[in-house]
Amino acid sequence: MIVLFTDFGLAGPYTGQVNAVLQETAPAVPVIQLFADAPPGQPKPAAYLLAAYAQWFPQGTILLCVVDPGVGSARRGLIAEAAGRLYVGPDNGLFELVLRRAASSRCWDISWRPPTLSASFHGRDLFAPVAGRLARGELPATLASPAVPRGYPDWPDDLAEIVYIDHYGNALTGLRGESLPPSAGLAVAGHPVAHAETFSSVPSGAAFWYVNSNGLVEIAVNSGRADRTLSLAVGSEVKILA
Amino acid sequence: MIVLFTDFGLAGPYTGQVNAVLQETAPAVPVIQLFADAPPGQPKPAAYLLAAYAQWFPQGTILLCVVDPGVGSARRGLIAEAAGRLYVGPDNGLFELVLRRAASSRCWDISWRPPTLSASFHGRDLFAPVAGRLARGELPATLASPAVPRGYPDWPDDLAEIVYIDHYGNALTGLRGESLPPSAGLAVAGHPVAHAETFSSVPSGAAFWYVNSNGLVEIAVNSGRADRTLSLAVGSEVKILA
Amino acid sequence: MIVLFTDFGLAGPYTGQVNAVLQETAPAVPVIQLFADAPPGQPKPAAYLLAAYAQWFPQGTILLCVVDPGVGSARRGLIAEAAGRLYVGPDNGLFELVLRRAASSRCWDISWRPPTLSASFHGRDLFAPVAGRLARGELPATLASPAVPRGYPDWPDDLAEIVYIDHYGNALTGLRGESLPPSAGLAVAGHPVAHAETFSSVPSGAAFWYVNSNGLVEIAVNSGRADRTLSLAVGSEVKILA
Repeated sequence: MIVLFTDFGLAGPYTGQVNAVLQETAPAVPVIQLFADAPPGQPKPAAYLLAAYAQWFPQGTILLCVVDPGVGSARRGLIAEAAGRLYVGPDNGLFELVLRRAASSRCWDISWRPPTLSASFHGRDLFAPVAGRLARGELPATLASPAVPRGYPDWPDDLAEIVYIDHYGNALTGLRGESLPPSAGLAVAGHPVAHAETFSSVPSGAAFWYVNSNGLVEIAVNSGRADRTLSLAVGSEVKILA
Repeated sequence: MIVLFTDFGLAGPYTGQVNAVLQETAPAVPVIQLFADAPPGQPKPAAYLLAAYAQWFPQGTILLCVVDPGVGSARRGLIAEAAGRLYVGPDNGLFELVLRRAASSRCWDISWRPPTLSASFHGRDLFAPVAGRLARGELPATLASPAVPRGYPDWPDDLAEIVYIDHYGNALTGLRGESLPPSAGLAVAGHPVAHAETFSSVPSGAAFWYVNSNGLVEIAVNSGRADRTLSLAVGSEVKILA
Repeated sequence: MIVLFTDFGLAGPYTGQVNAVLQETAPAVPVIQLFADAPPGQPKPAAYLLAAYAQWFPQGTILLCVVDPGVGSARRGLIAEAAGRLYVGPDNGLFELVLRRAASSRCWDISWRPPTLSASFHGRDLFAPVAGRLARGELPATLASPAVPRGYPDWPDDLAEIVYIDHYGNALTGLRGESLPPSAGLAVAGHPVAHAETFSSVPSGAAFWYVNSNGLVEIAVNSGRADRTLSLAVGSEVKILA
C-alpha cells in the first residue's frame, strides 16, 4: 500500500499527476490518499501530524510525503525506514518525529534521477517514481545511498501548537494524549479548555479537548467549529495549565 | 460496489483511513466516493439527499453512510436492506427516507465489534469494517441482530428546505420533482423562483427551479451561483406557491 | 488510462457518479482525477489549461473533459483524436487548442445515446459511457460520425490571462513558456513581475514568474499566495512588457 501525505490539494493537477506516475510505475499497488492538506509549506507541524497518522498503517506501508517549500534548492531527497515502514520525501524535517520515535531506523539519500526533473515538482518527477519502485520491490540501496538526515534537535518531542484544522473545524495539536494527564487544562488563544471523553460528553457549543482516534490531543466544540469559536489556526500556541 | 456517503471531507485523514480499511477488508471491491460533504452533523437533510442519490446505484450496492453527530454516545449502528441495496451507518434518521420509500426493508443492530473501537471515529473502526465484510459476502445476520430502527414519523415525505449546496452554488431541496407540478412557483429566502427545463432555457443571471438529474427539485442561476444570488444555505426554507 | 478534466468538484456527487459509470463500463481501466476545478463554466481558459496538461500523458490516454455551460442546449458532443490521445466532451471550444496544436487530428460528433439522457448531466449520462467504451476498445466510428468541430479562430495561440489559481495560490497563465524570453517582464493587475528560475531563487514574499512543470508561465510568491498578494483571479489580464 502506498499512502499519500502532501500539501498538494486534491482538486488541481498535483495529486492527479502523482497518481498517474504511481499507476504507471506500480500498477497493482493500491494508493490511499491520507492528507492532501497538510500544513502548506510547513514541514515542522506536518512532521508531528505525519508521525501520529503513519503509525496507524500496517508494516510494509510506503508513505509518499511531500511538504516541500525548498523544492528546486539543494535540499536532498530521502528514503527513510522507520518501525517497518518506508518514507519517501524531502530532507527538511518532515521525518524528524517519525525517526526520533522509532526504535530503529535507516536513511538513504536518493541518487536515482528521472530522465527529466522539473525544478518545481519533485513530488511527481522524483518522489513518486521512487515510491512506486519501492512498492514493486526494489530495495532502497538500488535507488539511494546511506545517509544521515538533517537533524532538528531543538524541535520538542511533543509540539504545543495547533498543527492541523480538520474539515469540521476541530484543531489538532502536536501533543500526544499520553503526554498529558486527563486532568490537565489547556489554554488556546486565551481560552481555557478542559478535558472530556468525547463530543456527547459536553453541552452543544462547549469547547473541550480529547484524545482523538489517532492519539493526538484535539480541541473541539460540540456541534460547532473550534477554529471559528476559538479563533484557531495552524501555529496557534497551546498552553498546558496543569 | 461500495459507495461512500459522508460528511468527512476528502482532503483530510478521514476518507483516507476509511478507504484503507475497505482496501484491507475487501481488496477486490471498487469504492466510489459519492458525497464527502453531506450536511455536516445533520442527519435530517442528509437523509433526503441520500434517498435521492442511492436509488441511482444498481441493486447489490453497499452504501457506507456516516453523518454521525452522536458518535461516542449510546446510539446504535445499523445495517439496513432496502430495495436491494445495503446501508451501513448510525441509527439517527439517516436511513429514514430510504426505508420509508422502499417496498420492503429489513434492519439489523450491529453487534460485531473491532479489537479497538475509538470513541470518535466509528466510520473507520466499526462501519467500514462491517461494510467491507458485507462487500465480500458475509451476511448481515453474522454481524448484527434484527432490530427496528429509531423512527422519525414527524419528518415529511418531502422536505421543503435546502438540503445541499453544490460546487456550482446550485441549491438542492429535499423535494422530489414528482411532488410538484411544473407550473408550481417556489419562494426561497423571499425570492420567487419559476420552473424552467434547464439552464439554457433562461437568461444569464436568472434564477429558476428544475428537476435535477437525480430527481430532486434544484434551484439554480444560469451562469451564476444561486447560493450567493439568493443567499441560500442548508436549512433555508422553500415555500411552494401554487 | 482515463483522465478526468472537469469543473465538477470532488466532494459532491458529480465526480462520484462519473466514476461509477466508468467503473461499470470499463472496470479494468484506471481512472486518474486530473482537474475537478477547471474554470467553472468557462471553456476558453479551460482549453489552454487542458492543452498544457494533456500533453504530459502517454499516447493512448482517453481524456474525459467536461466544462459545459451549454448542457441541455443543442451543442454537440465530440470525440477528438489529437496527437495520439482521445478526448470526449462538449463541442464548445474546450478542445480548440489541443486540436490546433496537434500535427494531425480527427473529430466525430457523438451519435450514441444512452437509454436515459438527463438534460443537465451529460458528463454522467453521455460522455462517461462513451469514454468507457473507447477505453475498452470500441472505435470512435462505432459511437460517432465524422464531423468538423466548431472553430474559434479568434482565440489566440497563447492566452495572456490567468486561467487557473492553484491550491497554493499560484496563478497559471495561458502562455506557454516557449512563447516568452526569460528576460520578459510581466505586469498583472498593475504589478510588475520579473522572471526567476524557481521559488528559492527569490526572497520570501517576493512575486516572480517562472515556467511551471507543465510548460505554462506561472505567477507565484515565495512562501506566499500570489492570488491574494496580487489580487488575481481567473480572467485577470497579463501584460507582456518586453
